Amino acid sequence: MVLKKPSVTYQAISKRLKVSEEDTGSTSIQAADSTAINGNITPTDKKIGFLGLGLMGSGIVSNLLKMGHTVTVWNRTAEKNAAGGIHSEVCDPEEDGQCDLFIQEGAHLGRTPAEVVSTCDITFACVADPTAAKDLVLGPSGVLQGIRPGKCYVDMSTVDPETVMELAQVIVSRGGRFLEAPVAGNQQLSNDGMLMILAAGDHGVYEDCSSCFQAMGRTSFFLGEVGNAARMMLIINMVQGSFMATIAEGMTLAQVTGQSQQTLLDILIQSQLSSVFLDQKCQNILQGNFKPDFYLKYIQKDLRLAIALGDSVNHPTPMAAAANEVYKRAKALDQSDNDMSAVYRAYIH
Amino acid sequence: MVLKKPSVTYQAISKRLKVSEEDTGSTSIQAADSTAINGNITPTDKKIGFLGLGLMGSGIVSNLLKMGHTVTVWNRTAEKNAAGGIHSEVCDPEEDGQCDLFIQEGAHLGRTPAEVVSTCDITFACVADPTAAKDLVLGPSGVLQGIRPGKCYVDMSTVDPETVMELAQVIVSRGGRFLEAPVAGNQQLSNDGMLMILAAGDHGVYEDCSSCFQAMGRTSFFLGEVGNAARMMLIINMVQGSFMATIAEGMTLAQVTGQSQQTLLDILIQSQLSSVFLDQKCQNILQGNFKPDFYLKYIQKDLRLAIALGDSVNHPTPMAAAANEVYKRAKALDQSDNDMSAVYRAYIH
Amino acid sequence: MVLKKPSVTYQAISKRLKVSEEDTGSTSIQAADSTAINGNITPTDKKIGFLGLGLMGSGIVSNLLKMGHTVTVWNRTAEKNAAGGIHSEVCDPEEDGQCDLFIQEGAHLGRTPAEVVSTCDITFACVADPTAAKDLVLGPSGVLQGIRPGKCYVDMSTVDPETVMELAQVIVSRGGRFLEAPVAGNQQLSNDGMLMILAAGDHGVYEDCSSCFQAMGRTSFFLGEVGNAARMMLIINMVQGSFMATIAEGMTLAQVTGQSQQTLLDILIQSQLSSVFLDQKCQNILQGNFKPDFYLKYIQKDLRLAIALGDSVNHPTPMAAAANEVYKRAKALDQSDNDMSAVYRAYIH
Amino acid sequence: MVLKKPSVTYQAISKRLKVSEEDTGSTSIQAADSTAINGNITPTDKKIGFLGLGLMGSGIVSNLLKMGHTVTVWNRTAEKNAAGGIHSEVCDPEEDGQCDLFIQEGAHLGRTPAEVVSTCDITFACVADPTAAKDLVLGPSGVLQGIRPGKCYVDMSTVDPETVMELAQVIVSRGGRFLEAPVAGNQQLSNDGMLMILAAGDHGVYEDCSSCFQAMGRTSFFLGEVGNAARMMLIINMVQGSFMATIAEGMTLAQVTGQSQQTLLDILIQSQLSSVFLDQKCQNILQGNFKPDFYLKYIQKDLRLAIALGDSVNHPTPMAAAANEVYKRAKALDQSDNDMSAVYRAYIH
Repeated sequence: MVLKKPSVTYQAISKRLKVSEEDTGSTSIQAADSTAINGNITPTDKKIGFLGLGLMGSGIVSNLLKMGHTVTVWNRTAEKNAAGGIHSEVCDPEEDGQCDLFIQEGAHLGRTPAEVVSTCDITFACVADPTAAKDLVLGPSGVLQGIRPGKCYVDMSTVDPETVMELAQVIVSRGGRFLEAPVAGNQQLSNDGMLMILAAGDHGVYEDCSSCFQAMGRTSFFLGEVGNAARMMLIINMVQGSFMATIAEGMTLAQVTGQSQQTLLDILIQSQLSSVFLDQKCQNILQGNFKPDFYLKYIQKDLRLAIALGDSVNHPTPMAAAANEVYKRAKALDQSDNDMSAVYRAYIH
Repeated sequence: MVLKKPSVTYQAISKRLKVSEEDTGSTSIQAADSTAINGNITPTDKKIGFLGLGLMGSGIVSNLLKMGHTVTVWNRTAEKNAAGGIHSEVCDPEEDGQCDLFIQEGAHLGRTPAEVVSTCDITFACVADPTAAKDLVLGPSGVLQGIRPGKCYVDMSTVDPETVMELAQVIVSRGGRFLEAPVAGNQQLSNDGMLMILAAGDHGVYEDCSSCFQAMGRTSFFLGEVGNAARMMLIINMVQGSFMATIAEGMTLAQVTGQSQQTLLDILIQSQLSSVFLDQKCQNILQGNFKPDFYLKYIQKDLRLAIALGDSVNHPTPMAAAANEVYKRAKALDQSDNDMSAVYRAYIH
Repeated sequence: MVLKKPSVTYQAISKRLKVSEEDTGSTSIQAADSTAINGNITPTDKKIGFLGLGLMGSGIVSNLLKMGHTVTVWNRTAEKNAAGGIHSEVCDPEEDGQCDLFIQEGAHLGRTPAEVVSTCDITFACVADPTAAKDLVLGPSGVLQGIRPGKCYVDMSTVDPETVMELAQVIVSRGGRFLEAPVAGNQQLSNDGMLMILAAGDHGVYEDCSSCFQAMGRTSFFLGEVGNAARMMLIINMVQGSFMATIAEGMTLAQVTGQSQQTLLDILIQSQLSSVFLDQKCQNILQGNFKPDFYLKYIQKDLRLAIALGDSVNHPTPMAAAANEVYKRAKALDQSDNDMSAVYRAYIH
Repeated sequence: MVLKKPSVTYQAISKRLKVSEEDTGSTSIQAADSTAINGNITPTDKKIGFLGLGLMGSGIVSNLLKMGHTVTVWNRTAEKNAAGGIHSEVCDPEEDGQCDLFIQEGAHLGRTPAEVVSTCDITFACVADPTAAKDLVLGPSGVLQGIRPGKCYVDMSTVDPETVMELAQVIVSRGGRFLEAPVAGNQQLSNDGMLMILAAGDHGVYEDCSSCFQAMGRTSFFLGEVGNAARMMLIINMVQGSFMATIAEGMTLAQVTGQSQQTLLDILIQSQLSSVFLDQKCQNILQGNFKPDFYLKYIQKDLRLAIALGDSVNHPTPMAAAANEVYKRAKALDQSDNDMSAVYRAYIH
């Protein structure tokens, strides 16, 4: 029984938020550029490289191209194609064919990370985890081979602060300029150019990336020293990952106690807990549709890194620790390549 | 750097929700009454009783009175006042003086629960926990003493299904009619008449309560057999309580790793996780203001009952179990009578 | 490669223990009676009743009879047999036929708990959980119906302190004398007369039970006020239940990482962690033999009650909370009636 | 009340164990050498190096010297002394002065890890964690600089399998021979030469270490491929660390519910849970004496690595995860350099 019109409280938050943005001195949040808001972006004339065409990278590259940037792409699969090699049996299926598509849309193809870096002014990278991020830079024909004084390298992967500080150090030691810029969001937001960008490191690089960030994102934050963006990103994803597990726990408890999951969602969505995230993830569960918007294996990786972040400062994170164990069970049930909402299955098996 | 205008996705949810409400057959959700929506409620002419004037009950009674209902109130403190007795040393401080206030606003004063029930047509009760709910009905001069055929009793306390089924059974065995109607919300929403009401039991009573529910709430759900509303309510509060612990965990991890909590909130509030709850609770933490909107001791009680609900069907609830331990630590730190957001303090001590 | 002879450190503990027993003033631990130690027990001439013939009760009754006590038994199944009724579909299979057996060994058969209590001087009870313990006393033809001044009632069930205090209160209010005496051990120890008895309440009853306790146990402790034995018992079983989950976690982690479980046991058993419990439970896992020595459903119940005990004093018990969730999963996998070591299966499914 | 003589069940285990050792084919457990058992060890004439003189290393070196081995030692502090440098502010206090002591007992002093390795036949290392183990090998003047074909390197640190496999790979690639040999035990057992040695890797090196292992340990196990000893060691310490947290949880729950901790220990020590570990750790708690026998910071590190081990094979370890969070709280309370039993303090603050 609907008794009263809902007050659209979301807008009240948005209004308050604007004020807080103007007041916050500790982070370099700047007033909105009206051009950006209207979508008329003047693309930088710098040559842009992009390494890693997964769920997030693909949307980003697509938006960079749409907004008129000159982009050279590379990914593991592309390298193999170009070299005429055989597809790795364990390569990410979502990466297949992405390079071809982007080339049709005007992108150039780099043969190695080193080549991309040496031919571009600013090279972005967005890969799976700390190991992949390090391999990309330090491995054979890696980023480091292409770094020369003045080259900019922007790592958008979600990794731990130690890894990103190590990468910054080696890039800078070769005369390169480093920015970390992990993104909050998922595949849909990446495709829509509505990511949130958390940046830290070289502020000049941050400014040089202005039109790129406008193409891919809705807001960017500059957080100071290298490592801060990694830390903040892990905290955001820790909150997200733990909340997802909680949602799954609630939805299954409803089911096993004979309550309607649809009704539970109807109630939650009218409560103060209502959020786009809550709605979308409950819809996934109701529909049994776990097509990845954010890989379960990546949110588990982020929980693991967030727990390690807490560990590094002796800070207990019991909620994240509990969530991590549930995601591990989901991984054991072959849900790694499904959406994070597939953690639901850890509760029903 | 704000790059694009936020899409007001909250409204999209609301729109979709309306459709789903019309489609959902399993729960008796009815189309909104335009009178109700405009706030012009025709109050029932039945005599209304109300037992328990805590954070939630006070707002409800105030709204019942405002909308023109005839209300007789009682609470533990009131009984003692009326009887000229001495205040219990352990009485809830927030209840003091509430009766006097309501009497000035036109409420009648009942001397005992039995008296309220015997002189009213429909008696609501909203007390702390299963023990209090049982004492109110089964104790000396309790509700059961006043029940006669046709009398309606509506228990709005958040308790476990076993307790509410036991109460329903004794009420009905005396010829009474029983509805359980726990409410989702907090003190602010109670004061604003914007609670969500989860009802189950006697559908006739549900209909008789129509103007009362319009006075106190924004939406009501009828969930079928007695016990279902208790189950659903515990699941809602389990999700809420676990999420609150996760928020506190994120805010503290930001602090101990040198990140700005304000910036963390700014990011979260622009993400798909954004909700009124998230915003309000982070504000509490930022301001160090833990004035109760929802007692920490009550959310811990609800977590405990939700875990027991899972236990009764052999369903693991590791997130709730982890959250429960954090709240227990907060209680040990004397945060019981603060807002649930004071669970934050369990992370910093 | 065995390099040195192991030092038999267990004996060192035993020796130290003896001294500590003599020194401990807070509990009434008495010097061993040489008669008892030599197994020559003089049975009391009081008439003994026994209610509840489960895993523990059966061994106890058997030992009471062997040592020459006059025993009247009753259990749920027996009542139904005597009354010519139909077997409950949910009755415990292990109780079937136990009464007949004991009658052959000289026991008398009581038709109801009330009858046993009214015809015996001291009646022991050992049932599943708080609900069963209350039903036995307060239910139709229950213990309370047979209590008269001077009758002794000894509850050996493992329950929460609130339950045992409530039972003590009603027994004493009818002039009865009450002792709680939960036992630490399992079926094997019960059969061997090697249980540990934790007693609290009426010290006179404790003394009157002397020959009975000698028949069934290896040591007894008197812990003071009613409720203390329940508390101590729950703590003991909490430690036991959490350790069992940890053992299962270690054994499965060995398996999934390709290590020999037998070798893990060989190492553990030579380490300072070595205990009879560790050895027996690992053997169960290695042999896949989960024949109940201590029901999994009962250790889960004890964990639940221990967590509630912590809850009552605002004390976090995160290890027990984590263990409890694992046991709940094991119960969902139909392991309730297996030995507690079957919690192993929660880790491999 | 002691009712019967305890059966010395520990010996029954030991007897059974002997048989199982003879039967276990999967690990190279050999029959005890009577010479070893009688303590008459013939020391190898190979030159022995030892890197790292912490709680464990010091006892090992002392026993190597006592049994007549030729030993060259080095640790971080020693290096600085030798070089006339300034003490690091963060150096381990327990290492100070250890080198001088050993030199008086006949040890030689190496100036760098590289020098020790190049002048000795077999070099052992026992350091804090994976980072320290890697630095020792790969850092400036590290082990790798001294490795030449035929040199043996035995890493006794408790690290993750990835680290030890990486170290094995670089050592072997330079022609060296590698054995991992982490030890189960604590300072007391190290001093007593009663450690348990888990070895894996080059079996020839294992055999060459025979007299060394006899000097330091009570039993050794050869577990096959490099990585297996690390895995097994982490599992052992995971069980130990989780059990320790459980013991602390039980002891505090006793205290806050008004039960005697001494009585709890008296009961536990007579139960089937009785073990040397349980007894010693409860004694620590009772006496408030947390002098390190096994550093709390190291058991937390091992829990972290064991959780990561589970992570690598998608295996949930909820007990270890819960324990890890408790130890993190203990570390935040400055208990890192106390014995692991100081986790107790995480429960009382």
